[in-house]
Formats: sequence, C-alpha cells, structure tokens
Amino acid sequence: MTKMYQFLVQRSRPFLSQRFFSQFSCASSSSSPPLTNNMSTTSGLVIPCKAAVAWEAGKPLVIEKVEVAPPQAMEVRIKVKYTSLCHTDLYFWEAKGQTPLFPRIFGHEAAGIVESVGEGVTDLQVGDHVLPVFTGECGECAHCKSEESNMCDLLRIDTERGVMHSDGKSRFSINGTPINHFVGTSTFSEYTVIHSGCLAKLNPLAPMDKVCVLSCGISTGLGATLNVAKPKKGSTVAVFGLGAVGLAAAEGARIAGASRIIGIDLNPNRFEEAKKFGITDFVNPQDYDRPVQQVIAEMTNGGVDRSIECTGNINAMISAFECVHDGWGVAVLVGVPTKDAVFMTKPINLLNERTLKGTFFGNYKPRTDLPSVVDMYMNKKLELDKFITHRVPFSEINKAFDLMLRGEGLRCIISMED
Amino acid sequence: MTKMYQFLVQRSRPFLSQRFFSQFSCASSSSSPPLTNNMSTTSGLVIPCKAAVAWEAGKPLVIEKVEVAPPQAMEVRIKVKYTSLCHTDLYFWEAKGQTPLFPRIFGHEAAGIVESVGEGVTDLQVGDHVLPVFTGECGECAHCKSEESNMCDLLRIDTERGVMHSDGKSRFSINGTPINHFVGTSTFSEYTVIHSGCLAKLNPLAPMDKVCVLSCGISTGLGATLNVAKPKKGSTVAVFGLGAVGLAAAEGARIAGASRIIGIDLNPNRFEEAKKFGITDFVNPQDYDRPVQQVIAEMTNGGVDRSIECTGNINAMISAFECVHDGWGVAVLVGVPTKDAVFMTKPINLLNERTLKGTFFGNYKPRTDLPSVVDMYMNKKLELDKFITHRVPFSEINKAFDLMLRGEGLRCIISMED
Repeated sequence: MTKMYQFLVQRSRPFLSQRFFSQFSCASSSSSPPLTNNMSTTSGLVIPCKAAVAWEAGKPLVIEKVEVAPPQAMEVRIKVKYTSLCHTDLYFWEAKGQTPLFPRIFGHEAAGIVESVGEGVTDLQVGDHVLPVFTGECGECAHCKSEESNMCDLLRIDTERGVMHSDGKSRFSINGTPINHFVGTSTFSEYTVIHSGCLAKLNPLAPMDKVCVLSCGISTGLGATLNVAKPKKGSTVAVFGLGAVGLAAAEGARIAGASRIIGIDLNPNRFEEAKKFGITDFVNPQDYDRPVQQVIAEMTNGGVDRSIECTGNINAMISAFECVHDGWGVAVLVGVPTKDAVFMTKPINLLNERTLKGTFFGNYKPRTDLPSVVDMYMNKKLELDKFITHRVPFSEINKAFDLMLRGEGLRCIISMED
Repeated sequence: MTKMYQFLVQRSRPFLSQRFFSQFSCASSSSSPPLTNNMSTTSGLVIPCKAAVAWEAGKPLVIEKVEVAPPQAMEVRIKVKYTSLCHTDLYFWEAKGQTPLFPRIFGHEAAGIVESVGEGVTDLQVGDHVLPVFTGECGECAHCKSEESNMCDLLRIDTERGVMHSDGKSRFSINGTPINHFVGTSTFSEYTVIHSGCLAKLNPLAPMDKVCVLSCGISTGLGATLNVAKPKKGSTVAVFGLGAVGLAAAEGARIAGASRIIGIDLNPNRFEEAKKFGITDFVNPQDYDRPVQQVIAEMTNGGVDRSIECTGNINAMISAFECVHDGWGVAVLVGVPTKDAVFMTKPINLLNERTLKGTFFGNYKPRTDLPSVVDMYMNKKLELDKFITHRVPFSEINKAFDLMLRGEGLRCIISMED
C-alpha cells in the first residue's frame, strides 16, 4: 500500500511476538532444491532464491539466499518478475513510530507468474500472470459480498502481521530462522507466497514491467477519482499532493474528462511534471495569506466539483473538504494522517450538501476489479509510462530507496532478472 | 423549514434595517376591497384579511386585519387553506439568539389555492392548488441546473429577510405599517404573497389538510433517507431524534424496506409512538455508560448501514457518523447545531470507507420533486396521517404554540376557515 495506509491498522490482528518465532518450524527448511526455471518441477518443494532482507530498521537491505516454503491451503507461490518501491515500504523499513518487525522482506507493488498453488486454489494455475495486492478479497465476508466495500474482513491490510493466515507461520527462512512477511506480499524476493485472495489475475499480454505499478499507489489514486469522487465530464477537480498517488488521482480526472484540474502542493518543482498528468492549475498554499480552500473557491466561483486529498496532512484534509462547492461537492480522502490527528469542520459545511468520503485502495476489489484497470491501460485509456521514472536491477534495490529518500521521481521499477 | 434550518443563513442577504421601512410604501394600502371568495375579482387589488401577527418575541400572536398587496413580477398570491406549526416558526418567534425581526407573520408549512399571479408567472394559474416552500427553485441558477443540488442561489432560505426579492418590500401592512415576511412564505395569514419559485403545484385531488405537512419537516426527513442515505431493502438504519423530522426519516426507511430501524432519543416516552413509524429498536443514550455509537455497533455486528441525524446536537451528529459500518456506511446530517459547534472525528473513521453527507430539505427540489412526494401519499406508499396529532382553528393558533412548547404531538394543523 502507499504511505497512505501506514496507519490503517486499527483493526489489526494480535501482534505476534518473538515467543511465536521460537515455535516456528519450516517443514522443509533443511532441503535445498536447485533454483529452476521449470516452475512445475519445484511444486511442493522449498525453493532457495534471492531476496532483499531488511535486518534492521533503516539499514540497507541485504540480498540473501532465502528458502521459500511451498504454498499451503489457499496460498500461491509466485515468481516475482518486477517489483517497485512505494512509500509504505520505506515507512515500515524506517520504522519510526510503528512496532518494528525485523528481519523482514518488504515489497508489495509487483507482477509475477504463478509457480505453484496450494490446496483449494481453483481460480489460479501455474503460469498465470498475477498482481499481488497488499489487501485481499476472500469473496465470503460481508465486505466482499457488499457491492460498496473492498475492505475484506479476512485479508484486510495488516502491517503488523509478519506471517501467513492459515498457520500463523512465515514461508521465508534463512537457515531455519523465519523471516517476516510484509502485508502478505513480500515481493522483494525472487519467489514469494501470497494468499490467493491477494492476487489479481493479469491479462497475459500486459507488460509486467509496467502494470506492476497497479498493485498499489496508482490504482489507489485512480480509483479515488473514478470510483469514489466520480467527476462528471467538464468538472473541476482539486488534487491535494502531487506524488504518485495524487498524480494518479489527476490521471483519473483527466480520463473522466475534467475541464480543470487544480494541483495543490508545497513543492513548486512538482508542477512541471504534473502538467503531464492533466493538472491545469497549480496552487502552492505557501503563496497565500489566506486558507487554500478560500483561494480555490475564489478561482472556481464557489468551489470545485470534486477534490481528492492524497497527502495525509490533516490540514490538507480539512482544506480538501472545505474547497468543494456547496450543493454538490464531493471530497475524497485518501491520505492517512498521524494517529492523533482529528478532522474538524463547521457542521454548516456538511449541511450545505457537501459530501465527505474516505477510500481505501481506490475502492477497487483487488481480484474483481484490477483486471479492468489493466484493460484500461491496454486500451490506451490509462497512461502508466509517465509514472515510471527509474529502473534498477534487483541487485541495486537500495538505489530505489535512495531515490525515494531524496524525493526523486515517482516509481522505480526493480527488475528481478536483470 | 424545520428547526434544523435555523442557522442556515451563512449566505444571507444584507439585513434590512428600520431605515428601509421608513421608505416603505404599500401602493394600495389605503384601499380596502371587500374580502371575497371569488378569487378572480380580487386580482390586482389589495386584499384585507386576517393574519396572526407576532408583534414581539415570545408574545402570543394577535389575529389582526392586514392588507395583502397584489403579487408583483414572478410572485403569486395564494389563499391559505391549512397551515401547520414547525419548530422553526417557534424558534424565530422566541428569537433567542438570532436577530429579532418584528412585527412578523410566521408560518411556512401550508397548502393553499392560487388567488392571482404576477407578471411573468406562466406555470401557475388562478385556482391551482399549491404547497408553499421556505426555499425555492428559480430554475436558472447553477444549483437549479445541477441534478445534485436543491440549494437555489436566488431563493435559498433566508431567515433574516423580511421582504420580497423583486423590490425589497413587504406585501403585508397594517394601516400602512409594513409587516415582515418570514422565509418567503408567511402562511399564518388568510392570504399571502410568495415567489412563484417557492410554490409546488399540487395534485388537486390531494387533501390539503394532510399534504400541507409536506411543505417542510416531513419532506426533510423523508428525503434525507430516500434521496440521500438511500438504504437498500433489508438495511439497518439508525435515526437520531424522534421528533417529526426523525420519524419522517424512519418512515423513509420503512418505505425503503429497512429490516431494522433503530431510534435514538433521550426521551423514552417517544418509543411507543415511534413504533408506528417502523422503529424496531429504541436506544436511550442515557441508559449506557459508553458512547451510543459503540452500543449501536454492538447491536448490529459492526454498525448500521445508514444513519440519519435529526437532532442538531453536535454529539449526536458525531455519534450518527461513527455508528455506521465501515466499508459502506453512510451518515446523513439533517439537524443544525449551534453556530459555535464543531464536527470532530478521527480521520480513520472516514478512511475506512464511511460517507458523511449533509442535506437540506431532504435534497428535494421544491417545484420539481414535491409533486412526486404528494403522489407517494396518494398511492398510499407514504403515510401522513400519523404525523398529524392535533388540529385547531386559526383563531386558536396560539394553542398550537402551547402544544409545541410542551413537546406534545408532532404536527398541529391550523385550519384557516374554521
């Protein structure tokens, strides 16, 4: 997930302590079958492969030889082809503020190929192309059965979980020592095991080195606009925060036919790049001595039709709400603020027929809806290339972290095979 | 409007001072044509008739002989047949806190018959049955042209205005002294002048002594549920506040096929009556030592599908929002709190895919939509009789105030002809 979701853990499952790890045993951890390209021959065996392991908070990842156990019931083992770095990986790697959980294999934006499937998996088979997703779709719970929700009860994101659902164990180990999973995906590994409910089946013609970015941030921003804000053709749309998620929200507004897309960011250097994403106007709140919602209302004869908040700054959230037009304005919150933040507004702002909504992963149900997002790309409706600003081989994964720490670029694709 | 709207004046037009009244002249105020039942003969003339005038805040209304000037451009003069008392009449009559505007003719829930029309009025004619509405529909502004809004720019409620839009003058006078209008309706008079945009044309078969209550509170609550919350069949719905508006919201939930309607009120005596409106469960927050949103979540496996807040208490507003289910819950705010109230919630409550919306007059466009609400009553889908708990003749209008001050009943119909 994006940085946005770093605090979406209020319904988290119990934190698994070190005590748990002393009980851990990887059934086949002593065996070391050779790494093979013939996926069918490795089914049921432990696969030794390379993974980028975070041993300590904030320290460079180390490419290690890890052993990846076979998938258990309802799980799938995939060969990761491409992965990309998202702020949430960085955030939990830095572990400033949250419960640290190390050693861990991060990574959750990726595309790969099914190597083998566990018992009960019927909708995926060896060779299928898939997108791992940090939040799942079990298909059975009230959320999955609701047309309106994508917040699966079973497979909802849990950043504090380092093990699989079925048996509470990790599928990764190094010399018998378990390595924690991350949000059920851990794609910074040549092979990883993922619950089948967290895998969207891909059109095999889709280029995995591009659509891998649809695993998280891009879909989050795009869906916030297309599924939740739903601007009509000719609408005015404000987007707060011009990082990858915000620009994906702008891309959604462009696709929806918005006539004016106002980008709000504190960094004026972002505007030039933002133009590629359909941003027509740039507002830097620091250039004004009055609230940015007032500036936007003045620019738009009373307010924008829709706004999407992608920073997670609580003041930006309030501004994003208060800048929409009365009568019909809809504000959509994507970014997640700090735990102690409180959203505050005068009730009249609501009573004058404004709508305030939050979204999680752009309201996409991962398995049901992501294939159609991939189709949007294949049909040239959705432009993805402009989000991909850097590429590195897996061996240089720490460069992707450096780029993000320096605030350079949008998405860095890490190729597992280079 | 209901008590809900008492503060919806943030976009109010300039307050008209006494200076204005010194300039006032009622063109025909010296003439006194006889009161007549033949409406066509009074067209263009001043009509002397009875009206209940509020001379001072909180003092009993006085039935006076007033003169009602003919309608000007885009205005309509109607003969009021039935009117009812709503909390907002009481609130502005008490004038505790707002700018007092006296003498004034209150009243805004009513039904009547067109006596004459001013220049430019083409969609109404003499003899038409109409419902006056405290907020209008000019048909030309951005709000009227939007499918999503009913907050007409020209005719939006303005509780501080005591005169007509066209010429800034009152149509009521006593011996040449102008009497203030109230929210453009002033139905506590045998005749009143109303902007044509504030009149909904009635099915002539509809009983005016019943459908008059659709002018305000009942439509507000009903529309909050049917037009804004939109519960699906089988939904769970919470209604905060079991006065007339809240019970109308419950009636909407009953019509929508809700399986469970939870009524929340501090007054346990209201539950018995509430059952008639489909309320299945009653929660008195005073019976619990934990927040009512937690109580409701416990009752409903995580929260209700929809909630409608009709009290205007800021804590109830927050509870109404926080008691809806994550993933799909929608909370609709109807009640208007005090001006210094602030709505506060943790952002995670929004980000977990809850929706918060406010509504004004149930999102009904008065002229466009009210005829269909009347049809709902005529087709026996909407039950109105249960809202009508008292009836008094016009001469006893102060009894209706007494009943409301004692908190007795829901709607008291005042018959102008008894």
